[in-house]
Amino acid sequence: MARQLGAQTIAFERNIHILSTAATVGPKEGEGPLGQEFDVVLADMLAGESSWEAAESKIVERNMKLAIEKAGIRQEDVDYILAGDLLNQSIGATFGMRSLERPYYGLFSACATFGEALGLGAILIEAGGAKMVAAAASSHFCTAERQFRLPLEMGGQRPPTASWTVTGSGAAILGSDHAKPRITHITTGKIVDYGITDVNNMGAAMAPAAADTLRAHFADTGREPTDYDWIVTGDLGHYGRELVVRQLAEEGIALGSNFTDCGIKIYDQQMQDTHAGGSGCACAAVTFCGHYYRLLAQKKIKRMLLVPTGALLSTVSSQQGESIPGIAHAVAIECGI
Amino acid sequence: MARQLGAQTIAFERNIHILSTAATVGPKEGEGPLGQEFDVVLADMLAGESSWEAAESKIVERNMKLAIEKAGIRQEDVDYILAGDLLNQSIGATFGMRSLERPYYGLFSACATFGEALGLGAILIEAGGAKMVAAAASSHFCTAERQFRLPLEMGGQRPPTASWTVTGSGAAILGSDHAKPRITHITTGKIVDYGITDVNNMGAAMAPAAADTLRAHFADTGREPTDYDWIVTGDLGHYGRELVVRQLAEEGIALGSNFTDCGIKIYDQQMQDTHAGGSGCACAAVTFCGHYYRLLAQKKIKRMLLVPTGALLSTVSSQQGESIPGIAHAVAIECGI
Repeated sequence: MARQLGAQTIAFERNIHILSTAATVGPKEGEGPLGQEFDVVLADMLAGESSWEAAESKIVERNMKLAIEKAGIRQEDVDYILAGDLLNQSIGATFGMRSLERPYYGLFSACATFGEALGLGAILIEAGGAKMVAAAASSHFCTAERQFRLPLEMGGQRPPTASWTVTGSGAAILGSDHAKPRITHITTGKIVDYGITDVNNMGAAMAPAAADTLRAHFADTGREPTDYDWIVTGDLGHYGRELVVRQLAEEGIALGSNFTDCGIKIYDQQMQDTHAGGSGCACAAVTFCGHYYRLLAQKKIKRMLLVPTGALLSTVSSQQGESIPGIAHAVAIECGI
Repeated sequence: MARQLGAQTIAFERNIHILSTAATVGPKEGEGPLGQEFDVVLADMLAGESSWEAAESKIVERNMKLAIEKAGIRQEDVDYILAGDLLNQSIGATFGMRSLERPYYGLFSACATFGEALGLGAILIEAGGAKMVAAAASSHFCTAERQFRLPLEMGGQRPPTASWTVTGSGAAILGSDHAKPRITHITTGKIVDYGITDVNNMGAAMAPAAADTLRAHFADTGREPTDYDWIVTGDLGHYGRELVVRQLAEEGIALGSNFTDCGIKIYDQQMQDTHAGGSGCACAAVTFCGHYYRLLAQKKIKRMLLVPTGALLSTVSSQQGESIPGIAHAVAIECGI
């Protein structure tokens, strides 16, 4: 049985381990600082498909099959798939997971979806409802750009606070294997809204949610930032990270040099012209699955807090003058014994 | 600890009860056969808001607060909210639940979302991760029509197989109270695709998924259709229900007169010009929360299987020539002792 810690945290009593991960990315991510750590780097944005949306689904499908293969299990050993993406009605995940033929839970926390998938996946195992589950999330620069912003063909100018949607998909297989990294806690986020309306400044929209979840995590667990080798948010980017540091500093919580963001890690800001950094569901998913999971598995880091962050907007909500609420779901992971 | 039964079913060992439900609907649903059973019937489609989308969120918010009030608990007693809707990036649920300030899991199974919310909510309690959770889903005729189909002002002609999106929101509070109806099993659906491409025939698109989940439920539990007082799918409507009956009959599973559909129950087909029947996330949610929950609580029915059904499409997937996969999540509920 899991234990409720404080208001928002669950501590897992059963050992829930991450058996394997897989990360597939686009060409730009392949050229970035983590390029060598991803399992698959696509040669182009279409992945052999006739539309970017079909490409995203194909990436989701192939990457999940790769994660299953890397876990050394069969497709039918996966009791549940939990997945989501940014597209309207989550078609990236739907059409990607269709051929897997496993019981399926579709999720939506915008770019925090990978955190939600890991959390609910761990809960399914803890409850005794599953032995192995798969968690995944995806995004694609071209599908996101044309859905949320402008036709790519326009070549619109990007403000400095704009982020770059990561192309790719990350997938993790959860199960039991004491040699593998273990999920010890999750802290589930609330919807937090500070009234930001600038759709070109997602970092500012999501920073209050990240701060809220981090504050809750430290309060619920009694841990401090220094108890982690790394605290890694999802896609706040350079400006959003600064806002979280400042907000929590005012409350007496000092986030130090062990606090970074997947959106900062995935691109070279100077060389790759990515402005605020990476974003999208895939940002946290591929950075964790490609980079941090490897460090945990190799015991180069012992304990980390992954905090995927999401901006809960649609073009309709923005056009109607709504603000952009954020959400962030934290997952504490330790390397195996 | 829950038990896995067969490939897709979880049997709950802990007693997980539905403490209360609330159902808010639009004017048309209020005029239908179940009109007297809903908690709130709106006087108009805007609910005092300036857009239909804002109206949907307002309905979600007020209805959730009503469900909490009816359970006799405080807002802060709800450990988690699980919710979703049909709108792009789930803005119905996001902006509806924002003011609740509870840890939040966004879900998307199209119109099967209420089944997913009840199932994952029950698992959270079973795992020991929560004492009380809230599950909800919503839809709105006007927001769905203009997002998925055509501007309402056009007054387009509807084919006979078209369904009518239910306006409303249903919410249930799960917790422990032996006097209340109990969730005993869930059977989680796979994504099932028979290649249907007609967006005006959702019943046909979803029927194979409903049949698949029902087949799995009976195989996993050893139960038969006659073991239930009612087997109730979500929004297959008149034509979709017939397809499920025919498909399962060919496999030797006889669904009888105890098999109906929320889309059939909610409107008077002759008088209300609703063609195939009701649809939308709210269809299963309000019909269960308004009608069936009452029958269970009054012990007029002892055991039912609720099977919300979803069509996993977007306008983009349809425009790109994709078929319409379906999904269905079953929840077995018994009246309290």
